[in-house]
Amino acid sequence: MSERTILDYETVDLDTENNELVIIDQTKLPGKIEIIKLSTAKEIWDAIYLLKVRGAPAIGVAAAFGLYILATQIDTDDCVIFYEEFSKHRDYLCSARPTAVNLSWALKRMDRLAQSMLFASADSINEEESFIAGKEQTGKEQIGKVLEALKEEALKIKQEDIAVCKAVGENGLTLVKPGDGILTHCNAGQLATCKYGTATAPIYLGQERGYNFKVFADETRPLLQGARLTAFELFSAGVDVTLICDNMSATVMKQGKVNAVFVGCDRVAANGDTANKIGTSVVATVAKRYNVPVYICAPTSTIDLDTPTGADINIEQRPESEVTQMWYKERMAPEGVKVYNPAFDVTDHDLIAGIVTENGIAYEPYTESLRKMVMGDTAKKES
Amino acid sequence: MSERTILDYETVDLDTENNELVIIDQTKLPGKIEIIKLSTAKEIWDAIYLLKVRGAPAIGVAAAFGLYILATQIDTDDCVIFYEEFSKHRDYLCSARPTAVNLSWALKRMDRLAQSMLFASADSINEEESFIAGKEQTGKEQIGKVLEALKEEALKIKQEDIAVCKAVGENGLTLVKPGDGILTHCNAGQLATCKYGTATAPIYLGQERGYNFKVFADETRPLLQGARLTAFELFSAGVDVTLICDNMSATVMKQGKVNAVFVGCDRVAANGDTANKIGTSVVATVAKRYNVPVYICAPTSTIDLDTPTGADINIEQRPESEVTQMWYKERMAPEGVKVYNPAFDVTDHDLIAGIVTENGIAYEPYTESLRKMVMGDTAKKES
Repeated sequence: MSERTILDYETVDLDTENNELVIIDQTKLPGKIEIIKLSTAKEIWDAIYLLKVRGAPAIGVAAAFGLYILATQIDTDDCVIFYEEFSKHRDYLCSARPTAVNLSWALKRMDRLAQSMLFASADSINEEESFIAGKEQTGKEQIGKVLEALKEEALKIKQEDIAVCKAVGENGLTLVKPGDGILTHCNAGQLATCKYGTATAPIYLGQERGYNFKVFADETRPLLQGARLTAFELFSAGVDVTLICDNMSATVMKQGKVNAVFVGCDRVAANGDTANKIGTSVVATVAKRYNVPVYICAPTSTIDLDTPTGADINIEQRPESEVTQMWYKERMAPEGVKVYNPAFDVTDHDLIAGIVTENGIAYEPYTESLRKMVMGDTAKKES
Repeated sequence: MSERTILDYETVDLDTENNELVIIDQTKLPGKIEIIKLSTAKEIWDAIYLLKVRGAPAIGVAAAFGLYILATQIDTDDCVIFYEEFSKHRDYLCSARPTAVNLSWALKRMDRLAQSMLFASADSINEEESFIAGKEQTGKEQIGKVLEALKEEALKIKQEDIAVCKAVGENGLTLVKPGDGILTHCNAGQLATCKYGTATAPIYLGQERGYNFKVFADETRPLLQGARLTAFELFSAGVDVTLICDNMSATVMKQGKVNAVFVGCDRVAANGDTANKIGTSVVATVAKRYNVPVYICAPTSTIDLDTPTGADINIEQRPESEVTQMWYKERMAPEGVKVYNPAFDVTDHDLIAGIVTENGIAYEPYTESLRKMVMGDTAKKES
C-alpha cells in the first residue's frame, strides 16, 4: 500500500457525529500533517484569521460548516432569538478576513436559507418552506429543521466546490498543451479548496492525463504558501515542480520556461480587476513583458459583480511580525523598523489574459463576459 | 555619548599590525554585530562565498586586502616562485563568486602591480620600477617592496571606494527632491561598500541635508539582505524606512509612494544591461508600468566594457538550502523538491532610466555614455 500523502486528507470537513469542523492545520505544513477539530466561535475565527485554513474556496466551506456548528449550540426555542444569535455568529466569522469574497458569500448563502425558513414573510421564501411555516410548528421543531437544512447546505457548498474546481480545471486545461511550463503564485491548490484546487486544477487533471507540465511555484512571502503548500502538494502528487523565490519570476520567464501563469483569486471585480495574494500583480506585470498569458482561475463564487473595480476591494493588512519574525529563528529586521504587510494586491484587468470559471473562460471586455459567466451559473441552477 | 550603531563599524578593514582581514560577519546581522578577523585563504574565500562580506565594492576591497595578506605568507625569496603562489591565491579568491566584476577587477589590479614590479620586462613596468629592478636588488628585497606596494594599493582601493561612493551619492541626489519616496532592493548600502553605499549614498547624503526621503526596502529573498542589512543600517541612521516583501513593490508603486528606484549592481555590460541581486529586473519591470524611473548606482569599477550584453554575464547559482531552510527553524519546503536559486538577474537596459557613476550619469544610448564614464575615470587618474 502506498504511503498516505497530503492529498489523501480532507482540507475542510464536517464531523457530523460531534458537530466539529475538521481541518488540516496548514501553519504546520510541510513539517507536520496535523488534523484539528474545532467547535467554538473563537477557535473557528482564529483558524481562519491565523490561516490554519486558508484559500478563498476553503475559507467559504469552513465558514459554512462553522456557522452550522455554532448554530447547533444556540440554546433557545425562540426563532427570533435564534436568528439574533445566528446573525452574531455570522458577522463574527465574516470579520476574520475581509478580502476573499467566498467567506461572506458562503455565510450569506447560509443566512438566506436560515432567514427564509425562519420567517415565512421573507420574499425569498419558497413554497415548501411556506408550507412548513404554515403548519405552525413549534419553535423547537422549526429550529431543528433549520439546523438540518443548514448542515445540508454547508455540505452542498463543499460538494459544489469540488465539482466547480474540476470544471475550472477542465476549462483551464484547454489553454495549455503537454510539456508546457506553468508558473503559479501562492497556493490555489487542493489545500485552498476541497479538491483539485483552482489554479492547480488544470495541473492535476493534466497530470492524470500525462501532460508532464513543468511547474514553477513562487514561494510567496511572507507566509510561504507556495513553498509550504503548493510545492508540497504538487510534489506529493508527482508533478514536476520547481520552487523559486517570488523575485525569480522574471528570470524563468526570460529563459522561456513559462508558457502560462495560473493563479487563484480572492475576489474578482465586475471589470475583471482581481484581488489575489500579494505579489500576483507583480507576476502579472512581469508576464506581460515576456508575453506570457496570465489566467485567473475563479469559481463564479469569487466573482463579485457588486464591486465595480479593483479600487473598491478592501485589502487586508496583516501583522508586521509575519514579515520580521514569523517562521524564523530570530528577528530578521531591526526592532522598531516600520513594516508594510498587505496580504493581497489587485491585478488590473489589462494584465489578465483570461478568467477561467466553471462555466467557461471570460475574456475582455470582462464587464460583459463575467456577467455571462455568473448568469450561466444561475441559469444552470434554475434549470 | 550616543550608542554605537552599525554605521560606526568598518565594513572591511585591514589590521596592518597582524595582517588580518577584519570584517563584520554580515550573516549574523541584525541580531548580533560580530567582528571577525581572517588570515587564511580558506577563511577569506569562505567569508566571500558565505556572504559574511558581500556587496560588489566591499568584496573587491576584501579581496584586495585578502590577496595582500596571503602574499605576506608566501615563504620564498624567489620572485618567480612568489608570483606563482601569488597567482594561485588570486585565482582561488576570484573563484569565490563569479558575477560581481569588482572581485576580479580588484584582484587584477593587485596582480598588475605585482607583475610590473616583479618582472622588469613587462610592458606595464614604469620608470621607477625599472630603476629598482636595475639595481639588481635581492629577491627578498624585491618581494618586500612588492608587499609594501600591494598593501598601499589595497588601502588605496578602499579609500577610492569611499570617494567614489560619495560622488555617486552626489550625482544620484540630483535625480530626486526632498520628501521623495525611494525604493531599493537588496543591500547596496554602507555594508556593501566601505562607506555611504552606492544605492544608499543619495539617501545618506539627503539625510544629512534634511531631505526626509521615505524609503522602501525590499526584504530580498532568499538571504534577506534588504531586511537584515538595508532596513538595519538605514533605520540606525534615522532614515524613514519601511520594510516590504519583494512581492509588494507593485502595491507601493501603484499607490504613488515611490518616485524613484535606486539599486546597486554587480556588473554593468557595455550596452547598459545590468546584473544585480535577483529580483532587480522584477522591480524594474514593475517600475516601468508605474512610470517610476530606475537608477543603477554603479562605480565605474562595476562597468565591464568587455562584456557586450547582459546575456554574456555569468549568473551565480546558489545552494537550494538558502531557499528551503536557511534562516528558518525548520524546512519550509518538502524534502526532495527541486529549487532554482540564481543569485542575480539581468535588468535589460531599456528598463533603466540612468546609470549613476562617480563621473556623472549615463543615459541611453549606454554603449556611448558608459564608455565616456569609464574614460572620464581614466582621464582623471592620468591627470
